[in-house]
Amino acid sequence: MTVVMDATALQAFLQRDFGQVADDFAVERADATGVTLRLRVAARHLRPGGTVSGPAMFGLADVAMYLAILRRIGPVALAVTTNCAMDFMRKPQAGVDLLAQARLLKLGRRLAVGDVLLFSEGGTEPVARAGLTYAIPSS
Amino acid sequence: MTVVMDATALQAFLQRDFGQVADDFAVERADATGVTLRLRVAARHLRPGGTVSGPAMFGLADVAMYLAILRRIGPVALAVTTNCAMDFMRKPQAGVDLLAQARLLKLGRRLAVGDVLLFSEGGTEPVARAGLTYAIPSS
Amino acid sequence: MTVVMDATALQAFLQRDFGQVADDFAVERADATGVTLRLRVAARHLRPGGTVSGPAMFGLADVAMYLAILRRIGPVALAVTTNCAMDFMRKPQAGVDLLAQARLLKLGRRLAVGDVLLFSEGGTEPVARAGLTYAIPSS
Amino acid sequence: MTVVMDATALQAFLQRDFGQVADDFAVERADATGVTLRLRVAARHLRPGGTVSGPAMFGLADVAMYLAILRRIGPVALAVTTNCAMDFMRKPQAGVDLLAQARLLKLGRRLAVGDVLLFSEGGTEPVARAGLTYAIPSS
Repeated sequence: MTVVMDATALQAFLQRDFGQVADDFAVERADATGVTLRLRVAARHLRPGGTVSGPAMFGLADVAMYLAILRRIGPVALAVTTNCAMDFMRKPQAGVDLLAQARLLKLGRRLAVGDVLLFSEGGTEPVARAGLTYAIPSS
Repeated sequence: MTVVMDATALQAFLQRDFGQVADDFAVERADATGVTLRLRVAARHLRPGGTVSGPAMFGLADVAMYLAILRRIGPVALAVTTNCAMDFMRKPQAGVDLLAQARLLKLGRRLAVGDVLLFSEGGTEPVARAGLTYAIPSS
Repeated sequence: MTVVMDATALQAFLQRDFGQVADDFAVERADATGVTLRLRVAARHLRPGGTVSGPAMFGLADVAMYLAILRRIGPVALAVTTNCAMDFMRKPQAGVDLLAQARLLKLGRRLAVGDVLLFSEGGTEPVARAGLTYAIPSS
Repeated sequence: MTVVMDATALQAFLQRDFGQVADDFAVERADATGVTLRLRVAARHLRPGGTVSGPAMFGLADVAMYLAILRRIGPVALAVTTNCAMDFMRKPQAGVDLLAQARLLKLGRRLAVGDVLLFSEGGTEPVARAGLTYAIPSS
C-alpha cells in the first residue's frame, strides 16, 4: 500500500482545483489507513435550527472519499462519484466542526469503494456514515 | 390517497421555513402521484467545470422527497432524513435547471420511503436517482 | 432502444446457465420498458412466519435487473452486481408469488444502473424497492 | 455499553428461532465491539462457478447485524430490516467459509444502524460491505 499524496499535498490540490470550496475543508490526516477531513462549519452549511445540513454532510463525505482515492493514485485522475449510500444517525452538535474519517476498501482499475464516518468534533458517536463508489477513468 | 398540500402551499411552506434556501427551489407540481421540484441552478450549485455539484443534487432530491411527504401529512411534522442511496448516472447538462420527480412508495406511521429521479431540464434520461427514507416523529 | 432478448430467450438463458435456481423464476415480460420476473415462492424462500425472506427478495431483484440488462446486450456478457441498495417496506403477503418490475436507467459501456419494485402478486403497493448497479466487462 | 447476549446465547437463539437455516451460521464472537458470524458455505450457497451467491452474502450480512442488535437488547424484540445498501467488491474465494464482522453504529429507540464487512476466511481484503437499518418495534 503506497501513499502518493500526503495531507499537505492533498490540501494544495484542493486549493488549486476546488476554488472557493477548498476553504471549507482542512485535511487533518492522510496516511496508509485513510483520510481525516474537517469541515469548517460556517453559516452556509447550516439548516434552520443551526445544525449542519444534509447536503453539507454529503459533500464532506464525498470529498473525503475523493481525497482517500487521490492519496493512492495521485492528482492525475478524474474520478467521479457513481453511488453514495448514507445513513443519518444523529443530529450534529451545533457550533462545532464536523470530521470525516474515510477509508478505502477497494481500489480497482475501474471502481474504488470505501466508507466514511462523520463525527461532530469532540464527539465519540458518529452522526452519519456513508458508503461511496467512484469510477476511475481509463488511462 | 389524500393530498393535503398542493404546489402553492408547499412553495409557501418553503418560503416560510427554509429561509434563503427557499429561493433555490420552485414547486412545479404536487398531486396524487408525487412532486416535481425545480432547482434554479446558480453559480453556488456548480462544481469546477460548470455542472451541478453532488451536494446540490443530493439537496434537491432530499427536499423533493420531504415535500412529497408533507404533501400527504401537512406542514406539522418534523420529518428527518435517515437514509439516502443515490446513483449518479450522467453529467447534468450545463446551463439548465435540474428537475426532480419524487414519488412516495410507503407512508407508514414511523417511516416514509420514496424515490426520486433527477433530470436536466429538457433531457429525457435521468442524471441521478435516489431512494430516501424519512423518520416521522411520534405525534 | 433495441431489445435483443425477449421473455422466451431470457427464460431459455436462465434454464441453461442458472441450473436448478432457474426453476424459481419465470420471465413474465421483457420489452422496451423493462422486465417483469416472477419468483415462484416455495418453502425454501420463506422465513419463520411464512413470508418471503430478505435473501429471496434480494435474489429476485438481482436476477430481474440482470435480465433487464441482458435483454439489451444479449447473453454474451458476464455482468456482475457491484451495488444494491434495498428498502424493505411491507411484509410480503403469505401464500402468493412475488413479482419484480425492473427498469434500466442507464446502460453505459462500463456500468448499468436500474431499479426494481417488488410486489406480492395481486398487491398494488410495493413490498420492496432496490437500486442496483452492474459492472459490464470490457469487450 | 451492555452486552446482554454472548456468542453462546446468540447461537442458541438461532437454533431455536431460525430452524434449519441456523445450521448455516456459527456465532464466532459477540462482545462490546460487535459480532463475527460464520457462513458455513455449502452447495446451496453457491452460484454457477462455485463462488458464494449474492443472496447468500446478503443473508449473512443481515443475520450478522440482527445478532449485533440482539446482543444489546436481548431476544425479546422483533426487529425487521428496513434498508440494506451493499457493495460487492471482490469475488469470494471458492472452497472457504465467509466471515461477517458486524458493528452497531446507532441503537435508538426506533432504529438501529450498523455496518458489516464480509471476508473469505483467511483473506485480508473484504469481499463485500453492507450498511443496514433495522426498525425496533415499540415496546
